[in-house]
Amino acid sequence: MKDQPSVLRETDAEARKLARTLLRSARYAAIAVLDPETGFPFASRALLGNDIDGAPVILVSGLSAHTRALDKDRRASLLTGEPGKGDPLAYARLTTQCLAEPVERGSETHTRIRARFLARHAKAKLYIDFPDFRFFRLAPQSASLNGGFGRAYVLTGEDLMILSPANEAVAERADEIVRDLVERHPNLPSATAAALKAPKGDWRIYSLDCGGFDLISGDLLLRCEFETVATDVNALYSHISNIKYSIPEI
Amino acid sequence: MKDQPSVLRETDAEARKLARTLLRSARYAAIAVLDPETGFPFASRALLGNDIDGAPVILVSGLSAHTRALDKDRRASLLTGEPGKGDPLAYARLTTQCLAEPVERGSETHTRIRARFLARHAKAKLYIDFPDFRFFRLAPQSASLNGGFGRAYVLTGEDLMILSPANEAVAERADEIVRDLVERHPNLPSATAAALKAPKGDWRIYSLDCGGFDLISGDLLLRCEFETVATDVNALYSHISNIKYSIPEI
Repeated sequence: MKDQPSVLRETDAEARKLARTLLRSARYAAIAVLDPETGFPFASRALLGNDIDGAPVILVSGLSAHTRALDKDRRASLLTGEPGKGDPLAYARLTTQCLAEPVERGSETHTRIRARFLARHAKAKLYIDFPDFRFFRLAPQSASLNGGFGRAYVLTGEDLMILSPANEAVAERADEIVRDLVERHPNLPSATAAALKAPKGDWRIYSLDCGGFDLISGDLLLRCEFETVATDVNALYSHISNIKYSIPEI
Repeated sequence: MKDQPSVLRETDAEARKLARTLLRSARYAAIAVLDPETGFPFASRALLGNDIDGAPVILVSGLSAHTRALDKDRRASLLTGEPGKGDPLAYARLTTQCLAEPVERGSETHTRIRARFLARHAKAKLYIDFPDFRFFRLAPQSASLNGGFGRAYVLTGEDLMILSPANEAVAERADEIVRDLVERHPNLPSATAAALKAPKGDWRIYSLDCGGFDLISGDLLLRCEFETVATDVNALYSHISNIKYSIPEI
């Protein structure tokens, strides 16, 4: 199902980049699931994170409505992209159709997702390890980007994934690479934030993957997407050098 | 289906008032519907208004995903209540399960809903009369209020409705009553906004019904809910007098 198919445009690199950015920079999302008793759609709110391959991740109480729904039917829809001032429909938003996969506590995936989630949602440490809290990975199946009035695009699930053979290597070395980068280019975070037209703040890089890196300042998250996915750690450094050359202040 | 039933509280007058306020002061909502082809839940965004009896109303393009979905299956879920600074889950939000009713163009209901919608979304005048734009009234069936961590309540559809024999009389005279009120109490809008802890602004009353009145300043909407529903126009004036006495600045 497509949002506004009447004005559907050809999905190009710019639309894919906007869609990935909307999904990866969202602190939270509206999530729609199916009521296990009635089949009614049910919309609620969840904190949003993501895995090293770009799959969105939610942390939920085992007793919440969406968790009981996903245990029965794994189909979920995420709405990301918040409006600002003026007409709310003039702001880009993304609907991502996903299949939820429970994340087993104690697994390597759980350890990685937990660390990535805490890097973006520090306050979740208060409840992240409660026995009734669980992660779901939401594997994107398709998506519908509405870039504002008259600009609609359909995307595949793959368009939203970071498909790189280096994902696990980068996940293991992410902290070290970020330290190294910031040592070499101390103004990388602030200059990137400025280039992305973000407000001034105490910006720092909190996460890195083969598709880009993430900045945080207080409640604000930013995503800096590479033009192409890095296929090894050297390519990752070279992508960041390219960003450096495109932003003279770095 | 209830959001966070583990910590379900008894639904009291305060919870009902918060729920009504969240629904009636929302400029937009996440709306979840069922994909007519696959049955997948589908979350998107719609501008929100309401009818004189409190039923939420959406204005949608006939070609948009949610419209095609509602034409096949009228079940919809609305998420209202936007987060501010800090933890998004600390902010109250409301999930309202609704049955969508198409609003026939040219009907009295359409005329009333159109006028009320334009009062809150002035810019919608650019497209409200396009032939492919339609209204749905979303009749609430039940709702789930999450007042922030550990404060969950279940509501009935009726809890969100304004059930008064004076609805139509007030709808017809609303503009006149507002003019009269503001003439008598010029600082009613600004003092009410201040009492509701809204930022300073050019507040004015844009709508009035048997359950309360609505204020607008730029992009901001506020809802001032009466404690009980007014059953005639005199009761409406007396409710506003009560508000006046509870806010000394008026």
